Amino acid sequence: MTPQTDTEAVEAANTAFYEAMERGDFEEVSDLWLDDGATPISCVHPGWPVLSGRGEVLRSYALIMANTEYIQFFLTDVKVSLGGDVAVVTCTENILSGGPAEDGAELGPLVGQLVVATNVFRRTSEGWRIWSHHGSPVLTESDEEEDEEPGA
Amino acid sequence: MTPQTDTEAVEAANTAFYEAMERGDFEEVSDLWLDDGATPISCVHPGWPVLSGRGEVLRSYALIMANTEYIQFFLTDVKVSLGGDVAVVTCTENILSGGPAEDGAELGPLVGQLVVATNVFRRTSEGWRIWSHHGSPVLTESDEEEDEEPGA
Repeated sequence: MTPQTDTEAVEAANTAFYEAMERGDFEEVSDLWLDDGATPISCVHPGWPVLSGRGEVLRSYALIMANTEYIQFFLTDVKVSLGGDVAVVTCTENILSGGPAEDGAELGPLVGQLVVATNVFRRTSEGWRIWSHHGSPVLTESDEEEDEEPGA
Repeated sequence: MTPQTDTEAVEAANTAFYEAMERGDFEEVSDLWLDDGATPISCVHPGWPVLSGRGEVLRSYALIMANTEYIQFFLTDVKVSLGGDVAVVTCTENILSGGPAEDGAELGPLVGQLVVATNVFRRTSEGWRIWSHHGSPVLTESDEEEDEEPGA
């Protein structure tokens, strides 16, 4: 089924990115990152410094995939902000992941993680491609601020 | 002095954003955020969930400014990736900040913070405006990965 609108196409590209990560499909992840020879990409993994350029960014994915036996993203709060040939997607990544097995177990211990991401996509002749990904850990409750209005 | 190139203009807008924060200038911060009535903005402060739309985003700045007596940003590693009418800026925010004074002191205790940011700017008739800001704490050393190449 072909996506009908730009927003749907961007959402599909965003979903494809996380599904490729779940499958550990490095080639697909590489293909989804912008590669127009003119616009440098950037990536921030949760708690990491900024990675710039395809070399650094793709190397980080190879490293993460080598150390991840299992990873699942449950995406919530997906919002697409469209502006011409660029889209800014924000979403919450509810991550369940496990490292390589130790001591003969089938899988390392599973770890849950709450991460928010801002993903910038750029329209190309081959579809929407990732220009920037920034993920960060959520350290506070989102509802807290409701009760923290400064008085006066 | 008028900025000469798009990259310089984007850098100037990025600097203006942090300087407005340093001055606690809420009006200026508000003006620098995109307000074209069509493209929703988004913002992630370090450790926070995603804030969407001018209402939520600007309210967060009012809240932060109300609780910040002093804040200084030393920006390093500023990189601009230009693509037509959109620019993705990454930078390291070396932050020194202090809350309101307590017990008659002039200033609360100063806290240093290392944050990386991805700022997306959009060209408008009035200049470059912030479409998205995502800041996150740096939890690991950037040089560690050099020594962590997976074998084979």
